[in-house]
Amino acid sequence: MSELETVVSKPKQVVVVGGGFGGLQAVRALRRAPVEVTLVDRQNFHLFQPLAYQVATGALSATEVAVPLRSIVKRQRNARVLLAEVTGVDLERRELALGPLPNRRGGGTLPYDVLVVATGSRYSYFGHDGWKEFAPELKSLRGALDIRARILGAFEAAEVEDDPVLEQAWLTFVIVGAGPTGVEMAGQIAELGRDTLRRDFRSVDTRAAKVLLVETADRVLGGFTPSLSIKALQSLERIGVTPLLGHTVVDVSAEAVVVEDEPGGRSEIAARTVIWAAGVTTSSLTGKLADAAGVPVDRAGRISVQPDLTLAGQPDVYALGDMARIEHAPLPGLAPVAMQEGRYVGRAISDRLAGKDPAPFRYRDKGNLATIGRLHAVAEVGPLRIAGFVAWVLWLGVHLAYLIGFQNRLLVLLRWSFSFVTHGRGARVINPQRPSGASDGPQTIV
Amino acid sequence: MSELETVVSKPKQVVVVGGGFGGLQAVRALRRAPVEVTLVDRQNFHLFQPLAYQVATGALSATEVAVPLRSIVKRQRNARVLLAEVTGVDLERRELALGPLPNRRGGGTLPYDVLVVATGSRYSYFGHDGWKEFAPELKSLRGALDIRARILGAFEAAEVEDDPVLEQAWLTFVIVGAGPTGVEMAGQIAELGRDTLRRDFRSVDTRAAKVLLVETADRVLGGFTPSLSIKALQSLERIGVTPLLGHTVVDVSAEAVVVEDEPGGRSEIAARTVIWAAGVTTSSLTGKLADAAGVPVDRAGRISVQPDLTLAGQPDVYALGDMARIEHAPLPGLAPVAMQEGRYVGRAISDRLAGKDPAPFRYRDKGNLATIGRLHAVAEVGPLRIAGFVAWVLWLGVHLAYLIGFQNRLLVLLRWSFSFVTHGRGARVINPQRPSGASDGPQTIV
Repeated sequence: MSELETVVSKPKQVVVVGGGFGGLQAVRALRRAPVEVTLVDRQNFHLFQPLAYQVATGALSATEVAVPLRSIVKRQRNARVLLAEVTGVDLERRELALGPLPNRRGGGTLPYDVLVVATGSRYSYFGHDGWKEFAPELKSLRGALDIRARILGAFEAAEVEDDPVLEQAWLTFVIVGAGPTGVEMAGQIAELGRDTLRRDFRSVDTRAAKVLLVETADRVLGGFTPSLSIKALQSLERIGVTPLLGHTVVDVSAEAVVVEDEPGGRSEIAARTVIWAAGVTTSSLTGKLADAAGVPVDRAGRISVQPDLTLAGQPDVYALGDMARIEHAPLPGLAPVAMQEGRYVGRAISDRLAGKDPAPFRYRDKGNLATIGRLHAVAEVGPLRIAGFVAWVLWLGVHLAYLIGFQNRLLVLLRWSFSFVTHGRGARVINPQRPSGASDGPQTIV
Repeated sequence: MSELETVVSKPKQVVVVGGGFGGLQAVRALRRAPVEVTLVDRQNFHLFQPLAYQVATGALSATEVAVPLRSIVKRQRNARVLLAEVTGVDLERRELALGPLPNRRGGGTLPYDVLVVATGSRYSYFGHDGWKEFAPELKSLRGALDIRARILGAFEAAEVEDDPVLEQAWLTFVIVGAGPTGVEMAGQIAELGRDTLRRDFRSVDTRAAKVLLVETADRVLGGFTPSLSIKALQSLERIGVTPLLGHTVVDVSAEAVVVEDEPGGRSEIAARTVIWAAGVTTSSLTGKLADAAGVPVDRAGRISVQPDLTLAGQPDVYALGDMARIEHAPLPGLAPVAMQEGRYVGRAISDRLAGKDPAPFRYRDKGNLATIGRLHAVAEVGPLRIAGFVAWVLWLGVHLAYLIGFQNRLLVLLRWSFSFVTHGRGARVINPQRPSGASDGPQTIV
């Protein structure tokens, strides 16, 4: 049987795990390849993570930053979507172990010829997973909706609180981590208190809200040039955020955060709302994959990959995005990196099937952006360093352009225009989180 | 002290319980009255209930039909919002008992001079509250999001199901109750299977979905003229809904619904998704209020009110909307009734403060509307009976007009336009329901 006949009679099975920025690009890049692609994810949507913080502050609706995976790959005839959690990998037998399928008991296995793993990263809580209960994270839609309920619930609690000390604790918001997400979140909460919610409440003065941004390093936006970090810091202070640089969180509870700025120099902040956006680690699948392949992971849990993004000794197993670290040439955990890597892997798979040897992956740095409140952002594009209104317009444009789906772009643009004109936020609904079978009660709204 | 001085020094306290259609209108109608208004609700938003079913089918986002109460009354200087559950009423002492306030233990009391209760209705499950777990209702946002997750999850489960009998059970949707909500829901699910999701799945043929609409009465849309019920029935059958008229649900479980069409004539339908939109009852507060005032409730739990919507013997206590029944002149449980009653009560309170005696409430019937799938609706407006496209355009216009907030109107119009052109639905996200502290797992998506 010739090579051609093999391909025609039984196309190679490519399994892509994870429908984030990297995984989706890999699937798309395979659209004309003679393969069958299965995209596995445990959620039915792709989350546009860079705007998750706007869901958390009620500026956007959850569905505007989350697109069903099925509708994204609908037109790609050689791709299908499987909703399942991958619980293990067997590199010898070339199959994945799956957790319980939707609504069913039991699991299953999924065979592959080529495997692409792109399961991203999550926040690490510095090894204290118990803090998560008091300090939800901003990487998932679930976390964003939880944070929205907590922020709005805190203002509600302050409104009815008689004790001024407790009222201030309800009005104190601690954001841990001053990367782009933490900075953007801090800016939005400051705006909520100073502007959006100011006239919504009768007893409490929401302008008394304190927003503390805790960061271990000595500057905000550590991924940017120091001069832009300084500009960002000034903007944050101007809109009412209090940065606590050189401070590390050493404890979190329902009522307080303990920070340390030097060994022994601890102080306690009475705060009822804590939001986590610091430290990075990877999914448990990353570790299992590294063990199976016998390749190392770094301190942040990232698996080592070759310059062509395969695992050493596993030419048919790729890892990319936040969960992977290219040996000798590590890249930051950014969406553009994952997207370029995804496209590269899709093309590399096609090339190999066509008997060509792909060139190593090369990242083209298109720049870096972060916004700080209304009308202000910082941007690095090639040699350019911009801070202010022009950077903000750039930020708007780039985020709208990369959002998937014309409808969502239009909806988000509309919401932003309204927020811009009215200083309001249209999606301030505290989502009811409990299943409908549970008894009614006021906890619903928290 | 003169009457005028009393008013100036301490305005009358009007407490409105419930931020639905009736309660909101009462609050608004009091905007120029020399009173202080407190709107109490246990949720932070007003739900535009007539479109909740579109959230359940992924056509709309939750925040597009839910408007924060605080932003609605923001500009009304004599009104404030209190997020709390009313757990009891003391008519002697003129105060309400409140359940735990947001994020706090303990409750509290809320004094009033004039009380307006408008806590609406909910579905009754024919006295079998245990069915609720298997058949969520369509009156709350929580129920709508739960139903969305179940419908989309059922198609996902069918996609990976090998057993054809189980696959058909996953593709069988039973809607209980053929009022406007049940009819609209059935039409939308039929469209999901036949059209929207058809090309999203690879293994399962979503057009094989069965949508059964179970109704005890012998016609659909019992609130409409019989001729329109017949037209609606024909439309439902044309778009693929199977109406089971004269059938009563006698049991619901996770795997099946048992219906009875004559005594002893039972049949079991294997269905994994059941949606409840039948039978009506009121909140527990309604019963407490009736007991306290010594006035009767009817079979649907509605409290008897006088022609001026006060309780007999309680000239300062009003009840209105779905929870109230005007003695000798009962009205249907519709949004327009609640809205007109709310406006009337607001004006009646103002009139009484000004020493005037209000005329009894009179309902002006503006008509009745229900839509059945794409491009089709039925409408009764005065002597007119319309079925088809013109009624559908009327339905669109009326619903957009009554939706609160210009932004939401525009967003909904946009989503509808997209759905109309693309036959798609933009909000098909299975919301992550569990709190972020819980461990990860595939159940998340169900």
